Amino acid sequence: MSTKWVYLFTEVAQAEKYVGGKWDDVRALLGGKGSGLFEMTRIGLPVSPGFTVTTEACSAYMNTGKFPAGMWEQELAALSEVEKLTGKKYGDSMNPLLVSCRSGAKFSMPGMMDTVLNIGLTDVTVAGMAELTQNTRFAWDAYRRLIEGFGKVVLDIPDEAFEHALDHLKEKVGVKADVDLTAEHLKTLAAEFKAIVRKHTGRDFPQDPLDQLRMATEAVFKSWNGKRAVDYRRHEGIPDTLGTAVNIQTMVFGNMGSTSGTGVAFTRNPATGEKKIYGEYLINAQGEDVVAGIRTPQKVDVMAKDLPEAYQQFVEICGILEKHNKDMQDVEFTVEHSKLWMLQTRTGKRTSAAAIKIAVDMANEGLISKTTALTRVRPEDVNTLLHPQFNLEAKAKAAAEGKLLAKGVNASPGAAVGRAYFDADTAEAKAKEGPVVMVRPFTKPDDVHGMIAAKGILTSEGGATSHAAVVARQFGKPCVVGAGAIKIDLAARRMSVGDVVVKEGDWISVDGGTGEAFVGQMPTVAPNFEEQGDLITLLQWADEIAAEPGSRPAGKNNSPTRGMQVWANADYPADARRARGFGARGIGLCRTEHMFFEQERLPIVQRMILSKTSEERTAALDELLPYQRGDFDGLFEAMTGLPVIIRLIDPPLHEFMPDEEKLLEEVIEMRVKGETAGLAEKESLLSAIRGMHESNPMMGLRGIRLSIVMPEIVEMQVRAIFEAACDVARRGFEPHVEVMIPLTGTVNELKVIQPKLERIAKVVMEEKGVEVDYKFGTMIEIPRAAVTAAEIAGLAEFFSFGTNDLTQMTFGYSRDDAERNFLLKYVEDGILPFNPFQTIDREGVGRLMDICVEEGRTARPTLEVGICGEHGGDPSSIEWCHLIGNNYVSCSPFRVPVARLAAAQAAIKHAGKK
Amino acid sequence: MSTKWVYLFTEVAQAEKYVGGKWDDVRALLGGKGSGLFEMTRIGLPVSPGFTVTTEACSAYMNTGKFPAGMWEQELAALSEVEKLTGKKYGDSMNPLLVSCRSGAKFSMPGMMDTVLNIGLTDVTVAGMAELTQNTRFAWDAYRRLIEGFGKVVLDIPDEAFEHALDHLKEKVGVKADVDLTAEHLKTLAAEFKAIVRKHTGRDFPQDPLDQLRMATEAVFKSWNGKRAVDYRRHEGIPDTLGTAVNIQTMVFGNMGSTSGTGVAFTRNPATGEKKIYGEYLINAQGEDVVAGIRTPQKVDVMAKDLPEAYQQFVEICGILEKHNKDMQDVEFTVEHSKLWMLQTRTGKRTSAAAIKIAVDMANEGLISKTTALTRVRPEDVNTLLHPQFNLEAKAKAAAEGKLLAKGVNASPGAAVGRAYFDADTAEAKAKEGPVVMVRPFTKPDDVHGMIAAKGILTSEGGATSHAAVVARQFGKPCVVGAGAIKIDLAARRMSVGDVVVKEGDWISVDGGTGEAFVGQMPTVAPNFEEQGDLITLLQWADEIAAEPGSRPAGKNNSPTRGMQVWANADYPADARRARGFGARGIGLCRTEHMFFEQERLPIVQRMILSKTSEERTAALDELLPYQRGDFDGLFEAMTGLPVIIRLIDPPLHEFMPDEEKLLEEVIEMRVKGETAGLAEKESLLSAIRGMHESNPMMGLRGIRLSIVMPEIVEMQVRAIFEAACDVARRGFEPHVEVMIPLTGTVNELKVIQPKLERIAKVVMEEKGVEVDYKFGTMIEIPRAAVTAAEIAGLAEFFSFGTNDLTQMTFGYSRDDAERNFLLKYVEDGILPFNPFQTIDREGVGRLMDICVEEGRTARPTLEVGICGEHGGDPSSIEWCHLIGNNYVSCSPFRVPVARLAAAQAAIKHAGKK
Repeated sequence: MSTKWVYLFTEVAQAEKYVGGKWDDVRALLGGKGSGLFEMTRIGLPVSPGFTVTTEACSAYMNTGKFPAGMWEQELAALSEVEKLTGKKYGDSMNPLLVSCRSGAKFSMPGMMDTVLNIGLTDVTVAGMAELTQNTRFAWDAYRRLIEGFGKVVLDIPDEAFEHALDHLKEKVGVKADVDLTAEHLKTLAAEFKAIVRKHTGRDFPQDPLDQLRMATEAVFKSWNGKRAVDYRRHEGIPDTLGTAVNIQTMVFGNMGSTSGTGVAFTRNPATGEKKIYGEYLINAQGEDVVAGIRTPQKVDVMAKDLPEAYQQFVEICGILEKHNKDMQDVEFTVEHSKLWMLQTRTGKRTSAAAIKIAVDMANEGLISKTTALTRVRPEDVNTLLHPQFNLEAKAKAAAEGKLLAKGVNASPGAAVGRAYFDADTAEAKAKEGPVVMVRPFTKPDDVHGMIAAKGILTSEGGATSHAAVVARQFGKPCVVGAGAIKIDLAARRMSVGDVVVKEGDWISVDGGTGEAFVGQMPTVAPNFEEQGDLITLLQWADEIAAEPGSRPAGKNNSPTRGMQVWANADYPADARRARGFGARGIGLCRTEHMFFEQERLPIVQRMILSKTSEERTAALDELLPYQRGDFDGLFEAMTGLPVIIRLIDPPLHEFMPDEEKLLEEVIEMRVKGETAGLAEKESLLSAIRGMHESNPMMGLRGIRLSIVMPEIVEMQVRAIFEAACDVARRGFEPHVEVMIPLTGTVNELKVIQPKLERIAKVVMEEKGVEVDYKFGTMIEIPRAAVTAAEIAGLAEFFSFGTNDLTQMTFGYSRDDAERNFLLKYVEDGILPFNPFQTIDREGVGRLMDICVEEGRTARPTLEVGICGEHGGDPSSIEWCHLIGNNYVSCSPFRVPVARLAAAQAAIKHAGKK
Repeated sequence: MSTKWVYLFTEVAQAEKYVGGKWDDVRALLGGKGSGLFEMTRIGLPVSPGFTVTTEACSAYMNTGKFPAGMWEQELAALSEVEKLTGKKYGDSMNPLLVSCRSGAKFSMPGMMDTVLNIGLTDVTVAGMAELTQNTRFAWDAYRRLIEGFGKVVLDIPDEAFEHALDHLKEKVGVKADVDLTAEHLKTLAAEFKAIVRKHTGRDFPQDPLDQLRMATEAVFKSWNGKRAVDYRRHEGIPDTLGTAVNIQTMVFGNMGSTSGTGVAFTRNPATGEKKIYGEYLINAQGEDVVAGIRTPQKVDVMAKDLPEAYQQFVEICGILEKHNKDMQDVEFTVEHSKLWMLQTRTGKRTSAAAIKIAVDMANEGLISKTTALTRVRPEDVNTLLHPQFNLEAKAKAAAEGKLLAKGVNASPGAAVGRAYFDADTAEAKAKEGPVVMVRPFTKPDDVHGMIAAKGILTSEGGATSHAAVVARQFGKPCVVGAGAIKIDLAARRMSVGDVVVKEGDWISVDGGTGEAFVGQMPTVAPNFEEQGDLITLLQWADEIAAEPGSRPAGKNNSPTRGMQVWANADYPADARRARGFGARGIGLCRTEHMFFEQERLPIVQRMILSKTSEERTAALDELLPYQRGDFDGLFEAMTGLPVIIRLIDPPLHEFMPDEEKLLEEVIEMRVKGETAGLAEKESLLSAIRGMHESNPMMGLRGIRLSIVMPEIVEMQVRAIFEAACDVARRGFEPHVEVMIPLTGTVNELKVIQPKLERIAKVVMEEKGVEVDYKFGTMIEIPRAAVTAAEIAGLAEFFSFGTNDLTQMTFGYSRDDAERNFLLKYVEDGILPFNPFQTIDREGVGRLMDICVEEGRTARPTLEVGICGEHGGDPSSIEWCHLIGNNYVSCSPFRVPVARLAAAQAAIKHAGKK
C-alpha cells in the first residue's frame, strides 16, 4: 500500500494508528495547528471541514524537490471529501468552495509560511461568490485579498508593491480607510493586483483553483527551508528533518452581516489567571480585521448579547477544550450566520502570576495533578513574582525617548529607582532622604553598607558573580554589573555614556532582570510573598514532591528518608528569618567574615592582623569574640530546629586592610612634598600590606590555609559559635550547628585543623554544661578536593560545593576579571553555551561534583552533600544537584522559592530514572 | 614443635626453609648484618662462629615485655655450639670465649644499639685472658672497654662519666694518649669504671657472663623502641612490627701483635668507581682504633707487604663477594695471628660518579645486566654529575666560620660564585668584567638578560616554580629562591641578614642543589657531558629500555613502535643544540613570548599592544614577523629530523608593559612638582596599563583566550613558524612542526582558533611551494580540559600537559605566592608529602592526567601525549607519565640526561605490569 500523505480532519484515528498511538507523534506528523483541529473534530466541536498534508510529505519533498508519489492525488481525493461534507464545489462558478492554507510544524516557528485565505477564488468563481453571498463587495474584497496574500506569500512579491497600489487607489478616489472602498474600487484593485503579479512573476495570477492549491502547498513546504526558519531551528536545536504540515480548511466568514462575527479568546485570564474567559470579538468582521486594529474590538462577553446562542456554545466549548487539554487555551473562532466555527486551539501564553494561579486552580479543580501543576510554572515565573518590576510600556517608552543609559549583566533581578550616588558613605547618608541607587566601577566588602542602604546597584565592571552581584542577590537588591559603556568619574561625581551625563543625585532606574539602566524615574510594581497565596500553595506541593525519597535517580540518593531540600545563604538573623519565611529548611552558608567589616569591628580586625605576636593577636580576637557570639546567637534563635552551616573565615587577610594603591599614592605624595608628619606610620602600614600582597589572591592564603598558618582566628570563631549555640539552647531553642571549613584541598589539612576545633567545641559545651547537636564538614571548591573526596569524607561529616570557586579553578577563570575580559564574548559567540558562573557546567565542573559525591559516599554513606555557591538558586544547576544526589541546595533568601520549584521539577523530571 | 628463635651462622638453610625460600625474607628474619654473616659462612668465607637471635624474637619481646618461651635456652644451646666450634668456653677462667653483640634490622637504622665488644670478660676471666694472650695490658684494656661499652649501651650511663674518669686518669699519670696507659693504669681504670656503673645503676657490673649476654640481648630488643629509632621508622615508613635481630659472634682480635691487624675496605673505589680495592688498614689494632683516628691508618694494599697471605686471601674474598652480591661491597675484616676473619659485608655507598662507573663497568664485565645497571644509579647521581659542585669540606668550613648567609628553596642545582649585583642591567654589564650572581627580591621577564649573564641567581621571594626558578633551570643556572631571611635594599644596593651585610660587588657563593647562599668565594668543580663516557653509555642503554614498546603497562600505550621518549624545553637554537647533545629526541616546548622581551623588539610589542585599531596592530606585528621567523629558523635547523613543538603566545599582555607602580610614582611626582611636559603621555600609558590589570592574572586573559579576543598575534606567529619551516626545508633540512595552543578549556575555543591557523599554514606552504610535516595540538593545563579530553582530542592532534598550571588550578595554589605563604610549611609539616610544583601529585593532578589520556585516546587513538611542565624532569613525575601512557616527557636541557635515566627506570619497574 502506498504511504498515506494526507489526512482528513476526521481521520485522527488512522493517524494515531500510523504513528503507533502516541499523541506526541501525531503532533509531529500533523503539526501543532493541525493536530489541534483534528482533536477538536474528534471530540465533536464545530470545525469546518479540511485536511492536513503530513510533515513526512514535506520531508519527502525536501529530499527530492517534488511531491512524493500519490500525495497530490490524495490531496485531490481529500478535497472531494470536503466538497461532500460542505455541499460546495471547489472551482464551481455557482457554489464555490473556498479554503485557507496554513503551515504548521510540531513546534511553532517564526519564519514559516503565513496563512493564505480564500484559495479557490478566480475571475470565474468570484462572480459565483458574489451571487451566493448576495454581496459583490465582499466577493471582490475576498478576491483582492487572495491575490495580495497569494502574491506575497506564495509568489514572493514584496509587500510594498500591493500596499503602494492600494494607497494610490485610496488617494485617487479620496478615501482614507479600506472599508470606504466600494465593490467597484475593489474590482479595480483586484485587476491592478493581478497586473502586479504578472509584472513580478512574468505569469498571470493562476486562474485554475487547483494550481492555486498546488502552489500554496508547495510554498508551505519551501518555507521550511527559508533562512529565518533554518536560523531559528539552529538556535533552538530543532532537527531539520522534522518538516512542516500543510493545513487546508474550508473558509468560513465572520463578515457576513450582523449574525456573523469573529474573535480570539483565552479560556482564563492570561494576565491574572482568573477563571473567566478573556478575549476580544468583532461583529461582522474577519479575523484580519481584529489584528489590523481598524475597528476597536469588544470584550468577548459582549457577544452574549449580540449572538447569545453562539456565545453559549462558545463558553461550553471553552470548558470542553480546557478539560480536554488540561490547560488554559488560546482559541480562535468565527460565527457565520449564527453558526459557530472553531478555527484554532492551543495552549495559551500567560504572565507569571497567571501561570501560578492557573496551575494551582486547575489542580484544586481536579483538572490536573499537583505534579502537573508544578511543571506548568517556570522557575522564572516565581522569580518574577518576587521582585519589583518595571511597567513594560513605561520601559519601551523610555527606550524610545533615548533614556536607556546602558546594558550590562543582569546580576540580580528586580526594578530599582533612585538617585545616583558614587560612593557607599554618601549612598548610605542620602538613603535616609530618599531612594538611592549606588553606582561604582565595582564594589568591595567595605561598600556593603552602601549597598544595603541602596535600592539598587549599578557597576561598570565585574560579572554575574562579582562582589556586587553576589551581595546584591544575597540582599535581594536589583543589580546591573559590568555596564561597560558607562564612564564613571568618581572625582567629578558623575557618569556618562557618550553625551548623556548623570550627575550625583540625578534619578536613574535599574532593571536587574534585563540588565538595563535608564535615566530618570520609571514606575514599578512591588509584590509581597505572604500575599502570594497561590505561590505558597504551589511551593508546598513542590516541597512534598522534592521530599519524596523515591524521586531520586536510582543509586544516587543515600538518604532513605528525604529528597533534596532548599536551604538559604544568610549571614544575619534578619536574612535567616526572611529565608525561613520563603521556606528555607536550613542555612547552607553563613559567611562569618562579613561581620568583620562592620565599622566598629574593622579596626580591631586590622589590629589583629597586624599583630606581631600570638599574644597580641589573641588579645584582639578576645575583643572580637563577643561580637561574633552575638552574630551567631540571633542566627541560631531564628533557625531553631533547623541546621545552620557557619563557614569559618575564608577571604585573604589583605581584604580587611586599607587599599594598597591609595595608600601608596598618599605615601609617594608625602615623600615628594617632603611631608614627614605621619609618614613613617603610613610607610610601615604600606609595608605590612605589601607583605600580604599576592599575585593571585583567589588562589592564595585563605580559607583553611590561613587557619593552618594562623589558627587563632578560627579558634575564636568556633568558641563564639559554640558559646552562642549553648546559650541559645539554654534559652529553650534548638540549635543544629554545622561548622564548615573552606578551601580544603587535601585531607591532611583537615587532619590538622578539625580535631583542634572539635576539642574547642567540647570544651565550650563542658563549660556551659549544655550539649548541642553539631557536625564538622568542609566546602568542596578545589578540584583536588573533588577527586580525593573519599579521603576527605573520612573526616568531614558534610560537603558543601562552593561552585563559584570550583568553577574558577576548573575553568581557570578569575571571576573578578573573566566576564569583563572574555567570558561574555565567549557566551555571545557560543564558545560557551552559557555563563558557567550562573549555570553549572555539567561536563567539566559537574563531572567533578559527580565524582565527588559518588566517592565521598563510598567512604561515608551518611555524608550530607549540599551546594552553597551562586548556582544553588539556578534551576539547571539545581537539576544537576538532584541528579548527582545532593541532600540540599542553598541559595540567597530571595531565590529560595525559585529553588523549591526547581527542585520539585527536577524530582518530577527524573523520577525513577537512572 | 616450638619456634626456632636462634640460628647459628651455619644454619642458613634452615632459616631459608623457615621463611619459605626468599632471600629478602631471610634478611627480614635475621637482619641485614646477620644475613651478610650467614651468607659469607655459607659460601665458605672465614667468619668467626656465632649466632643470630631473630627479629621475630624481638617482636615477641615487644609484645610481651619478656623473651619468648625457649629463646634463652636456644641462645644457650647456640653458645655451646660456638664453644665447640672455637674450642673455647664462655666464662671459663682459663680459655674464655668472648663475644660481640650487635643489633641488625632488615634496614640499617640510626638509633639502634651500637656494638658491645668483649662480652664474657669478668674479674675472673680477665685474668685467664691475660694468661692466654700473654698480654695483661691487652686483657685489662679489653675489660675496661667492655665495662665502658656495656655501661653506655646496655646500662644507659652517660658517655661523659667514663670519659671524665679516663681524662682524669691520664692527667693524673701524665700521659696524653690512651696507648700510653699501662696495664696497671687500665686495671685501675676498670675498677673506676665498675664504680661508675655501681653509682649510676645501684648495682655491680654483672660478673656472671650469662647475665652480660642476657642483658645485652635485651638491650638490643629495647633499642628497637628507642625514640630515635621510632622517629626514623615513622619518617621512612618502616613498620614497627619488623623488629631487630641480635648478632652474637666470637671476638677476634687484630691487636695481637705484628701478625694481627684490622681494616675496612670497598671492593672498588667509592669515589671514582675505579675497579681497585680501596680501604684502610692498621696493623696490630682493633677496629675501634681505625675509627677513633688515634693512629693514622694505612692504605689497605700496604697489608700485601705486612701480611701477604692474609692479603692475598682478602683480595680473593673481595672478588668472591662482588660476584656473589653483584655489587660493590663495603667490608670489615680482622687478622688475628695471620688468620683472616671477615666481620661484615654490605653494599657500599658511593659517589654519583662512582655509581655510574661501577654500574657500567659491572654490566660490561657481565656481572650484572644492563637493566640492573640502570637501576643502580639514582637520577640525582646524573644530575650531580652535570652541575658544578662545591667542595663539601670547603662548604663545611665556610659554615663553621659563619659564612652561611641564608637557606632558601633549592631551585636549580649547581654551584655559582660571583659578585653580587641587585639589578639585571648592572649584572649584565658587570658580567663582562667577571663572574656575577644576580640578587633580586624576585625576577620578571625583563630580568632575563641579567640572569643569562649571571653565573647564578639568588632571590628572597618566590618558590620552586617562580619565574627565577623556571628560567634558571632552563638555562642551567644555579639558583636559590625564597631565601626569606635576606633583606634586600635595592636603593642602597645591599642586602643583609642580621648584622651580616653584603654590598654590591661583594663575592657570594650560591649552592642551588642545597639552597644555601654563602658570603665569599668557594671553590667549585665543573663537569663536561661529552667527557662523561660512562654516563653516555648508561643513557644509551636507558634509551633502549625506555624505547621498548613492551615496557609500558598493558593498555596504557597506544604506540606499538616506541616507549616514552625524552624531549627538551628550549626557546633558542643554542638551547636546542645543547638539548640534542644531551640526548633529547625533540623539543617539547618552545616559548615564543620570551622572544618578545628582547630589547629591540619590546617597544614594537608594546606599540602592538597599545594599538587602537586592528590595522595599527597588524602593522606592528608585520615588524615582528621577521624576528620570529628568524627565531624559528634556527630552531628547526638545529632539530632537523626531530619534532619541534612551538607554543603560541601564552602570558597576559600586561607582562610586556612597563611596571605600573613605577609609572604611578613618576606620574604623582610630576603632578606634585607641577611638571607638565610628557605628563599626559605618561598618564595615558598608566591608564592603559591599569585597564589591563587583572585581579588574578594567572586565571585571566591569556593563552587561547587572548588569541580569541585578539587573533592577530597568533596569526603572525603561525605565519612566521611556517615561513621558517618552509625556508629550512628548502635548505635541505627536515622540520617537523607542531603548533601548540595554550590554555584550552573547552573544545569550542579550539574550534574558533585552530581551523583559522591551519588555513594560514596551508597558505604559507602554497606561497613557498613546500610541504612540511606538521601537527596542531594543545596544552592540557586547565582541569576542565583534562575531564573533557575526548572532545578536545577531536581537534587536537597532540596533548602536552602543562603541569605547572594544572597543579595551580587543581590545588588552587598560586605558584607566585603559595610557596612563600604556606606551601613550604605544608611540606615541612607533612600536610603535603612533597611540593606538588616539583613532583606530580598523583592522587589529584595525576588522576586528572590519567583520565585525560584515557579519554583522549578513546577519541583519537593516535593522540600524541607529552608533558612540558616543570615536572617533566622529575623522576617520580616521569614514572607517573610512563604509567598513564605518555609518549614523551619534555624538560629543561640540563635535566634531559636525568629524565632519560628516570624514564628507563620507570619502564623497568613497571614492565608488563597493569
